[in-house]
Amino acid sequence: MAAPEQSRPGRRRGRRPGGADTRAQLLDAARAEFAERGFDGATVRAIAERAGVDAAMVNHWFGGKEALFTASLNIPVDPAALINDVLPGPPEAIAWRIVPRFLQLWDTSGGGQMVTLVRSIAAHEAAARMMREFVSRVILKRVVEQVAPDRYELRAALAGTQLIGLGMVRYVLRLEPLASADHATVVAAVAPNLQRYLTGDLDAPAP
Amino acid sequence: MAAPEQSRPGRRRGRRPGGADTRAQLLDAARAEFAERGFDGATVRAIAERAGVDAAMVNHWFGGKEALFTASLNIPVDPAALINDVLPGPPEAIAWRIVPRFLQLWDTSGGGQMVTLVRSIAAHEAAARMMREFVSRVILKRVVEQVAPDRYELRAALAGTQLIGLGMVRYVLRLEPLASADHATVVAAVAPNLQRYLTGDLDAPAP
Repeated sequence: MAAPEQSRPGRRRGRRPGGADTRAQLLDAARAEFAERGFDGATVRAIAERAGVDAAMVNHWFGGKEALFTASLNIPVDPAALINDVLPGPPEAIAWRIVPRFLQLWDTSGGGQMVTLVRSIAAHEAAARMMREFVSRVILKRVVEQVAPDRYELRAALAGTQLIGLGMVRYVLRLEPLASADHATVVAAVAPNLQRYLTGDLDAPAP
Repeated sequence: MAAPEQSRPGRRRGRRPGGADTRAQLLDAARAEFAERGFDGATVRAIAERAGVDAAMVNHWFGGKEALFTASLNIPVDPAALINDVLPGPPEAIAWRIVPRFLQLWDTSGGGQMVTLVRSIAAHEAAARMMREFVSRVILKRVVEQVAPDRYELRAALAGTQLIGLGMVRYVLRLEPLASADHATVVAAVAPNLQRYLTGDLDAPAP
């Protein structure tokens, strides 16, 4: 991340002037625009206008619309890096790469930032809409379509039920013994289920 | 449920007098006591004292401590009835009885009450603690221990990840096509995963 610009005293009363301010203004404007118009409807130009800054600042601070979108969601991870970690390897074992990475993501942030994210999805329709867009834009197109044989959207949503449920129960509800289980135990228990959602038979008959 | 008692005007200024008031006071007191002391620590006597009513009112309005606990959680269902619906039948197919009942529960309430419940778990530690107690007291003892071969607590928590995740994605996040999928599609997709958590092998090696 670039260093904040030099302060320009008196430019805007009651707010911290300079680059960090511009970045925060862009994030606020982006959240509002993405929530109102969705990912496709929101434009970099409209977000910059709303923030009262030059559109070039979006590239300067975030590198583009998708990265601004991710930043505005407050996900404590770079999705591109995460996807590069899990995609290589046999598709029929991708869940064994996703679950450890997911646990690491929560544990690294002390769960705090992810808990905040889950809470805002649960509490605010705008956050829920943004997360829907994030799943379909980033997770669906970049991960599920690469490994799933068919029914991408349903598989992505089902995988979402497992991952968001794991986050809720282990880190928000903190239900034992899952809350304290080591990663190997969680992976052995959860990965086969996640894998079935991604590449398995979704129409298995009742026993 | 019993009819509210006759009103006793002037008994308490600024509040609606009578039985409905007593019931609401008991619910408030119960939430506070259960949140502070947990299910085991909270006593009917302490809850009644806190509410400023006679302890007999707990039995009158709720039938006992566990029912008061359930009522204080605002779960739009009688867990005893739900358990009676799903327990009979082969244990190895219980997920095919649970998932339809779970979908029905959300759909009947228009999702509203359940969404509120999930939101309060996500937002409030006290609600999270109460839900933990509810799972271990009611769901674990009455369902999972009846059908699971071993590792009851872990199975109950894993089953919780699937059910709470399904509720979050279908009804709170409303991610398509899962949000609009008919019950048969959801059951065929989700029940095998839930069933594995309840009675399957939790230590399957990676493929």
